[in-house]
Formats: sequence, structure tokens, C-alpha cells
Amino acid sequence: MREDADPTAVDGASEAPPARDAEGNLSGAFRDAVEAAIATRDVDRLKALTADLHEADMGDLIEELDGDERRRLIELLGDAFDFTALTELDETVRLGILRGLSPLTIARGMRELDSDDAVYILEDLDEGEMAAVLEHLPAPERVALQRSLDYPEESAGRRMQTEFIAVPPFWTVGRTIDYMRETVDLPETFYEVFVVDPGYRLIGSVSLDRLLRTRRPMLVTQVKADQLKVVKASQDQEDVARMFERYNLVSAPVVDDAGRLVGVMTIDDVVDVIQEEADEDLRALAGVGSDEELSDTVGYTARSRLPWLVVNLGTAFVSASIIGLFEATIEKMVALAVLMPIVASMGGNAGTQTMTVAVRALATRDLSSHNARRIVSREVLVGLLNGVMLATLLGIIAALWFSNLQLGAVISAALVMNMIAAGLFGILIPLAISRLKLDPAVASGVFVTMVTDSVGFFAFLGLATLWFGAR
Amino acid sequence: MREDADPTAVDGASEAPPARDAEGNLSGAFRDAVEAAIATRDVDRLKALTADLHEADMGDLIEELDGDERRRLIELLGDAFDFTALTELDETVRLGILRGLSPLTIARGMRELDSDDAVYILEDLDEGEMAAVLEHLPAPERVALQRSLDYPEESAGRRMQTEFIAVPPFWTVGRTIDYMRETVDLPETFYEVFVVDPGYRLIGSVSLDRLLRTRRPMLVTQVKADQLKVVKASQDQEDVARMFERYNLVSAPVVDDAGRLVGVMTIDDVVDVIQEEADEDLRALAGVGSDEELSDTVGYTARSRLPWLVVNLGTAFVSASIIGLFEATIEKMVALAVLMPIVASMGGNAGTQTMTVAVRALATRDLSSHNARRIVSREVLVGLLNGVMLATLLGIIAALWFSNLQLGAVISAALVMNMIAAGLFGILIPLAISRLKLDPAVASGVFVTMVTDSVGFFAFLGLATLWFGAR
Repeated sequence: MREDADPTAVDGASEAPPARDAEGNLSGAFRDAVEAAIATRDVDRLKALTADLHEADMGDLIEELDGDERRRLIELLGDAFDFTALTELDETVRLGILRGLSPLTIARGMRELDSDDAVYILEDLDEGEMAAVLEHLPAPERVALQRSLDYPEESAGRRMQTEFIAVPPFWTVGRTIDYMRETVDLPETFYEVFVVDPGYRLIGSVSLDRLLRTRRPMLVTQVKADQLKVVKASQDQEDVARMFERYNLVSAPVVDDAGRLVGVMTIDDVVDVIQEEADEDLRALAGVGSDEELSDTVGYTARSRLPWLVVNLGTAFVSASIIGLFEATIEKMVALAVLMPIVASMGGNAGTQTMTVAVRALATRDLSSHNARRIVSREVLVGLLNGVMLATLLGIIAALWFSNLQLGAVISAALVMNMIAAGLFGILIPLAISRLKLDPAVASGVFVTMVTDSVGFFAFLGLATLWFGAR
Repeated sequence: MREDADPTAVDGASEAPPARDAEGNLSGAFRDAVEAAIATRDVDRLKALTADLHEADMGDLIEELDGDERRRLIELLGDAFDFTALTELDETVRLGILRGLSPLTIARGMRELDSDDAVYILEDLDEGEMAAVLEHLPAPERVALQRSLDYPEESAGRRMQTEFIAVPPFWTVGRTIDYMRETVDLPETFYEVFVVDPGYRLIGSVSLDRLLRTRRPMLVTQVKADQLKVVKASQDQEDVARMFERYNLVSAPVVDDAGRLVGVMTIDDVVDVIQEEADEDLRALAGVGSDEELSDTVGYTARSRLPWLVVNLGTAFVSASIIGLFEATIEKMVALAVLMPIVASMGGNAGTQTMTVAVRALATRDLSSHNARRIVSREVLVGLLNGVMLATLLGIIAALWFSNLQLGAVISAALVMNMIAAGLFGILIPLAISRLKLDPAVASGVFVTMVTDSVGFFAFLGLATLWFGAR
């Protein structure tokens, strides 16, 4: 919804196929029409097709084009291309496009953007490339971007928008509204007006609905919010997301170490962070790198997934050597080899259930030292309860399968033990890892399955040796 | 930040311990102070302690109290208790509290709430309980809540707020602002003003910043947004969340089937939906019920986790019977029993990696029929590449361990096969499940590990039988 789109283009677009199909996916007909226009270099048609497109839809469109078409689309559209669309792309695709454009073209695109979007696009470039783009920007914008880029990655300083409205404490509501009516260069969207002292130190904030429902002569300091949640520029973006979520915020001021207002964080950036964070936990639990994207190459993907697989190879040898201890028993009774993976696999599943609940509860701070003891005993009891149920079932089937009642008894006992171990270590391992200030999502899985495999094999083969080895 | 909190209480609160410690958790000293005040029934102290508390902090506090203290806290606070805090609780805890309060007390609490919060609290009650509460509400509020509750669970109609500001198209910006200044009973927070025709059909929307930066004589229809994203009341909340996320919305109008404006969805509700949805995927992948909460009882938790474990028992028998086919081979060479879990486990891990990426890509619509072919071949190649690397490592170690070069060759070949199967089925299974319009997160895990276990055992033991059985 940028205002610089050519209004006459709307008519031309009316004969274009709709951009999205009934299921909300980009429609094939629309993509074909765009590809045809790119191929024939029909700039007018291309502008007509894309004039009404939201940046998010433009992002989806770009991802479906091939590398060469992407570059030509942007070149053909020229000033009509809204660089905000680049924020909607996978990092790999974005970098590919940026490296095909001249620094001058990129700089021209950046000038139209909110500072947070510009920083998001530029931060992945390497230092030389970034300097080349910044060089082509006017000084005030260059300085503002540079200041954001100086904050650490994934900090509020990187995600904040440096465009905001700040007024002095002696202004009235009326004067503030008049100021907004008269000023042309306001931020594109905003949800609050800040009150600052002459040193730009934050005094308070007035939400727009408050401003609208208050009479003009009131001072802004009289209508500012009682409780103000403030973000520090150096704060980690996940902390900020947690704060927005907890207190249902839509926007919050960002201050530097001296308490000076330097920017504003808005909910749309935070939504992305929340999404990313939940995704990171999910991927970490499965041993997939948090930055893996569908557009990554085979080589990159394989390399990034290899480390976890190597670790798993190591832990698999641990459980294999436990089996190795009982070679003699297995040789006497091959049925043990047939049944032993069942005990290990059931424990692995139960352990993963407990671990997943624990990892998420730690991430959302629902699990803390205060209730840890209660949750640990709950998980052990759940393991015991389900262990007894499943062990009965497994024991009967195993006894029938091998016509051996005692084998059924042994596997039942082993399963109960392993299910209890699964409940216990499924929660103790993530708790211990988080005590060490490491991310429990990343490393818990390896250790939990190592424990449940080892306990499973050891309990089953050990009990079998005691029972049958004595005969 | 409710305005009905007793302002004199603030002084009393200054001697209270801070509610949160440095890490952002609820402080133990604060909880102790509240518990002491509850025990001595010191209402003034209790009001002083909690007057400044945000609803989210009050929610955390309630969760840390025991069942009896929770009820007494609410009774002692009386009208000073903000029922919004109940929306921050686990469902189990909320229901426990509601069932300890009289319908009249609940109804009195509901009157102070936004309609979306009231619906959120009431929807978990059973029909009789709900009717008893609604009976105590004045007709207009009862009708509004009833209308929301008539929409299906997890629909926009349930999550929407029915308080909003709507003005006719012939109003000017000035008249709209004057109306807001003069009206006392406005929604607590709002981000846009809707324009409707006399039949309440939606014509457009004006954001507050737009209203503030426009001169008074302009008509609201002249400043309304060009592109308006509208939510249908019957729409699933996940679709709405996807729309908010895609188009960076903060609020959106909700219309009924006739296009009449019935409510507004705001970003704070959507953030919860996004969080829940990512959580659901994560839990589903681990076989944990999406509604499981830390406050659930042992019995409930065990029961809810049992079904997946039973299914896993079934699939474990499938792979066990594959091992059973090769009993004779294992009897001749027990080393096979020692090594076979390694092949299965590595495949399981690689399959889980691929499956996790696929499930999330399907959920975020990054994976569709358009790019499925490319992603499938990428995953197979990743499996082949990592398979060859890991097989070399595994082959060497196995050959050294059992001083048997041929055993090393056999296990290497088996691992490569299983890693390719993991890549292939890790993506084909979620794709197939999603084609059947089922949730790939729920059922993929069982089938993927069944395939990797079975292929792992079959490839390794089968190759070993061919190779060594012939001697």
C-alpha cells in the first residue's frame, strides 16, 4: 500500500489475472503473465500487473521466478519496484538479488524504506558491499542506518525503526495534532507519540486513541500512559518479543544506555521474531540448523545437517557397545535381538514427548526452579503409568509370539524401567542443559535418546541374562 | 493498567517487594508477601501489593499459588480483581478457579472485560455453567457474547472484539474526532475507525495515524485505506493469523456472511494464535497432545500421551518382524545384532531432519506442488551425500571393531540406502498426508521412523544374508 504506485495503473491491472488463487497461493496464471511480460520486456504491462501487489505478494512472486527473471523484473520496474518486498524473501534469494544489482540501485531503493526494513536488507551483505551502498545515501539517512547497524545482530537496535514522533512535555494535545497535520515527512505508520525532554530523554508515551479522545487543551504529559514498557537498544530481540507477548504491546520506545529515545519497535517485527523463535526450537529439536532455508543448495544443506548426525553416530555406538556386552546371551536366544529394538524405541518416544514439553516450557518460562520438582515427579509417574499399560500389552504379544511366558515377563519389566528412565531423563536433561545457560532445544535430543537406548538395551538384555543365563 | 485501580493504593505498594526479579521471573519475596496477606486476610495490604500489577503478572502470580489461595485472593480483592488476568492462565487452572466462584461473581467480572476476553474465559465452561453466567449479564452484553459464542471454536468470530468505532461515510475527519472526544464508552484500545453504510455493511477503514495527520474538513471516505484486508467471522483463526503475519496487520475488521461489520480482530489475539500454532506443530511432531499443559494431572497427561505410544508399539512390531526374518543369519553372526540399531537410528535421525523441514515448510506454505519436485530431489541428494560420508566413517569403525572388512562394507552399503530412503520418505510422507487434507505434523513421525527402521534392518540384515549366508 505505498502511495507512490501509479494510480492510472489500476485500470490496466483490472484485466490481469488475480494474483492469488482460492487457497491463498500465488496463482499460476498470474505468474505466467508476469513471466511473459518479463520475456517481452513489456514495462507497462509489468507495472500494470504488479501495481496493486502487496509487498508480501511481490515477495512470493519473486521467489517463484528464476534468478535471471528476478533481476530483470527489478530492473524493468525501476523506481516502481518497492524494495520492501526484499524483506519477505529467504536470505539466500535476497543476497542473490542484491549481488546482481549496482550499489547505486540498491541505495536508491533503500531511500524509500523505513529504517528497520533497510537495516534488515543490508545487514546480510559483507562489509565492503554495505559500505558501497551506504556511500550513495545522503548523510542523515546514512548516519541513522549506521547507528542501527552498529548494534549487535538480533538486538532491538537492529530491529527498531528510527522514524518516530517525539514532542516536548509542555505541548498540548491540540498542538500535537496540529503538528502532525502540518508535517509532511511523518513515519509511514505509527501507534504512539513520545514525550521527551530537551536532551531527548524519554518522559512518556501517548497512544493515538488516547490523543484522539482527549480534549485539545490537555497537556501531553497529563494523558501519557501510567506504565510504560521500555526496550533497551542492546536488548536481545527474543527478550523484546517475550515482553510484547506478555504485555500485549503494539509498539514500544527503544532507548540507548543514557535513556535517550533512539527508535521504536513495532509488533510486525516482533511477530517475525516470535515465529522464528518457535521455529528455531522445532528445528533444534530435530537437529536442523536454525538458518536452513528451502532455497539452500544441496551441499550447504548436507553440510549443515552433518554435525548432528555425526554426534548421533557416536551415541549409537554407545548403545551398540551395550548390546556387545550381551553377545553370548543373544547367541543363545536370538529372539532377544528381534525384540530389543522395541524396548529402546518405546523409551525413545516417551523420552521425546517429555523432553519436548520441557523444552517449550523452559522457553516460555513456564518451567522454573520453583515448580521443577513437581514436574519431574509428574513425568516419572506418567512414565510409570504408561509403562505398566504398554508393558502388559507388549509382554502378552511377545510371550505369544515366541511361545515363551518368561520372555514376556522379562520384556515387560525392562519396558517399565525404560519408561521411567524416559520420564526422568526426558526432563532432567533439558533442565541441566538450561542450568548450564545453554539452549536445551539444541542438545537435549541426543542425550535423551542415548539414555533411553542404553537403558532399554541394558535392562532387557541384562534381565534376560540373569533369568535365562542361570538355567 | 486499568483505571479502576485504587489510586491511593500506589503509596502502600511502594514498600512492597518488586514483583519480578532481574531475570524477569516472578520474585519469591513478592509471592511470599502476597501469600502472607492472603493468610491474614489483610485486604488493604493485598490491594496495595497488586494494584500496580499488570494482568500478565497477576496471571503468573495466580499460577504460583495453590488452589485454595487462588480462590481466596479473588474473593478478597473483590471488585479490585481484574478478570482479564484469567486469560493469562492455563485452561486447567482457569476452569478450577471459575468452578469455585459463583455465576454472579463471574458475571460481574465479565462486565468489565472486552468481549474477546470474556468469550475466551467463558468458552471452556460447559453449557449449563455458561448459561448460568450469561443469565446475570444485562441483555446487550449477553446478546453480544452469545453471538460470538455461536461461531465455531477457533474461528475469527470467537476471537474478535465486538467493541469498535464505526461512522457513516458522510462524516468528516473533524466530526469523527469530536465524536471520539465526546463519547465516554469507547473501546479500551483501538487502531482504526470503520466506515459503514446504514445497513452496517463495511465501506472502509481509517487508521488513527491517518485521522490525525488529515485536516478536519476531509470526508472519512476520502482518507480510507485503498486496500482493506477483511476477515470473515467464520474463518479459521490460523488463516487469520497467516493473513496478519503476511500483510503486517495490527487490526482488521470482521464481517458476517452478509458483509456486515460484526467485530474487530487485533494483533494481540493473533500473536497468541501464531505462538499456539507453532507450538502445536512442535508437540504434534513429538506425539504430545496440543492441549497438554504443565498443570495437568498425571492421569490426564498419561492418557493423552498413550495413543501415540500404542501406535509406536505397532510400528515397532513391524520392524521387529523384519528382524525376525533374519534370525538364522543373526544366530550365525551376533555382531549383526550389535550393529543393526546403528543403521536404523541414523536413518531415523536423517528422516526426522527432513520431515521437520517439510512439515514447517508446508505450514508456512513455502512448500507447495509448485516446488515439491525440486525439494524432493534436494532431500534425496542430501541423504546420498551425508550417507556416503557417514557410511565411510561407520564402515571403518565397524570393520576395526569386529576385525571384519566385509562387515564394514555391508554396513556402509546399508547406511547409504537407508539415508536415501530417509530423505525420500522424510518429504514424501508429509506431502502425501497434507494432500489428504490431514495435518502432516501429527502423523508423519510414526510413518517416517517406521520406514527408516524397516529399511535399515532389512537392508543391513538382507545384505549380510546375501554376503555371508552364501559362504
